[in-house]
Amino acid sequence: MNELELIRRIAARAPGRGLALGIGDDCAVYRPRGGVDLLFTTDMMIEDVHFRRETHPAEAVGWKTLARGLSDIAAMGGTPRFCLLSLAVAPWVDQRWIDRFYGGFLRLARKYGVALAGGDLAHAERVACDIVVCGSVARGKALRRDGARAGDHIYVSGRLGGSALGLATGAGAAWKKHLKPEPRIALGRFVREKLRATACMDLSDGLSLDLYRLCLASGVAAELTGPIPTFRGATLEQALDGGEDYELLFTVRPRTEVPRSFDGLPLARIGTIRKGRPGLVEFEGCPLPPRGYDHFRRGGRG
Amino acid sequence: MNELELIRRIAARAPGRGLALGIGDDCAVYRPRGGVDLLFTTDMMIEDVHFRRETHPAEAVGWKTLARGLSDIAAMGGTPRFCLLSLAVAPWVDQRWIDRFYGGFLRLARKYGVALAGGDLAHAERVACDIVVCGSVARGKALRRDGARAGDHIYVSGRLGGSALGLATGAGAAWKKHLKPEPRIALGRFVREKLRATACMDLSDGLSLDLYRLCLASGVAAELTGPIPTFRGATLEQALDGGEDYELLFTVRPRTEVPRSFDGLPLARIGTIRKGRPGLVEFEGCPLPPRGYDHFRRGGRG
Repeated sequence: MNELELIRRIAARAPGRGLALGIGDDCAVYRPRGGVDLLFTTDMMIEDVHFRRETHPAEAVGWKTLARGLSDIAAMGGTPRFCLLSLAVAPWVDQRWIDRFYGGFLRLARKYGVALAGGDLAHAERVACDIVVCGSVARGKALRRDGARAGDHIYVSGRLGGSALGLATGAGAAWKKHLKPEPRIALGRFVREKLRATACMDLSDGLSLDLYRLCLASGVAAELTGPIPTFRGATLEQALDGGEDYELLFTVRPRTEVPRSFDGLPLARIGTIRKGRPGLVEFEGCPLPPRGYDHFRRGGRG
Repeated sequence: MNELELIRRIAARAPGRGLALGIGDDCAVYRPRGGVDLLFTTDMMIEDVHFRRETHPAEAVGWKTLARGLSDIAAMGGTPRFCLLSLAVAPWVDQRWIDRFYGGFLRLARKYGVALAGGDLAHAERVACDIVVCGSVARGKALRRDGARAGDHIYVSGRLGGSALGLATGAGAAWKKHLKPEPRIALGRFVREKLRATACMDLSDGLSLDLYRLCLASGVAAELTGPIPTFRGATLEQALDGGEDYELLFTVRPRTEVPRSFDGLPLARIGTIRKGRPGLVEFEGCPLPPRGYDHFRRGGRG
């Protein structure tokens, strides 16, 4: 199968709703509506870094490639619109793997009404995917990570450490959470529109590192007063430092009434924003080191 | 150097003009102007596929990564606005290589006023870059490849085969053309606004394959009547089948007056669009097989 045939095959399966021009030309064309800001995020998935051929089914690799990008759109309170996918395939990849990869990818795309606008195809030693997702949000309303203020309450969605536990055990609900994270799109909009959050981000690299980043961006410190909602069977360390949970971390003004759950997903207060050295996070009276996953410092997570 | 430090370092050097929010949050934010369509294109550059560590200077890899995306914006007659860059670095990459890579990348970005809106960083076995470029064009005015009609005249810019010659010889002006192609942004706008081209695309994979694609998209055939403008020292085969020239291929209505050059760049008529089997290209009375570079069928170009 050559490039043209593969592109035709992908284009035939890809939803193109919302695009003025989809796959097949030099560029895709998107016609933005008035009064919106557009959100852009990009994420790589690389064989032997973010996933392994032996353990990660092709469908899950496709799903997760898109889920990571959608999670960033959720973190800004946006609605995903379209995406572009670059895929470099390794010599071991066959047509069946590619079909399953796109199967998982497009299943998630359809679920959230995200058009696949285009991409690039290449060969490489190892599989490498790169996703760009575009979302939209009412003008000036994107949820940033730099708006937290002293006194704000800190919340997280869901239960943390599931993905790290799943990666360690390769079984059960935790493994499923690791393989097919659910982007918190509806929650992101709720947090922005109804809770009027002061800051928000998604937990991609672990609570300790991501909260450090939020505090650094906002020029504030944080005190974790717990309890940290922990995935069943996960250790506290996995909940604090484990990456890839893709839950939302957000701060609200202290008088904001936050429900205990949203659409069945628990929302838990875990602490308070304080004045102090920007980025300092205290837990049980001690500084919590930002030990979450740093893609660049370490060689791999998988 | 960790991810946060590297991102800070890149952000400090990156032009952010035109963005509502640049590098550092979950997403970049772009506020589109009214009355425009947005163009999106994505391209990968992979070590040992698109470039080699031993022969391609880091600065040229950075330049070319962006140039390939800008060339797609030029092909639609658009103006580039911003880009996102994902970079996976191999174990052999040091800080100096990264600095030079971004040096070449950002030099070209500044030249065309393109903001670097964000990206992703990772480690991998081999260097892999993926670029997304967003451009804008007046609503409904993007130059597509599916508008060529029987009787239209076919034109190319520049002289073809230079990049293929440069790759073969590794020296002189042809090597420079291979390493640092110049995206034809101003020409693309001229072709769209003044010549009212019926179709346009950039020559990334070789004239024979790219003209085949243009004809296929437009549902027409083509007759090459030559002469094919050939880079000094390149063979006719390199001019017909060599990739990565990043010149523009476009068609205009037969009465359109096309100047012999634009801003010093030659524009040459090479043939005529005909009725016939879609995609059929004839050259000197015989069908010309689409032999240009197919990224997906073959293992590499380097």
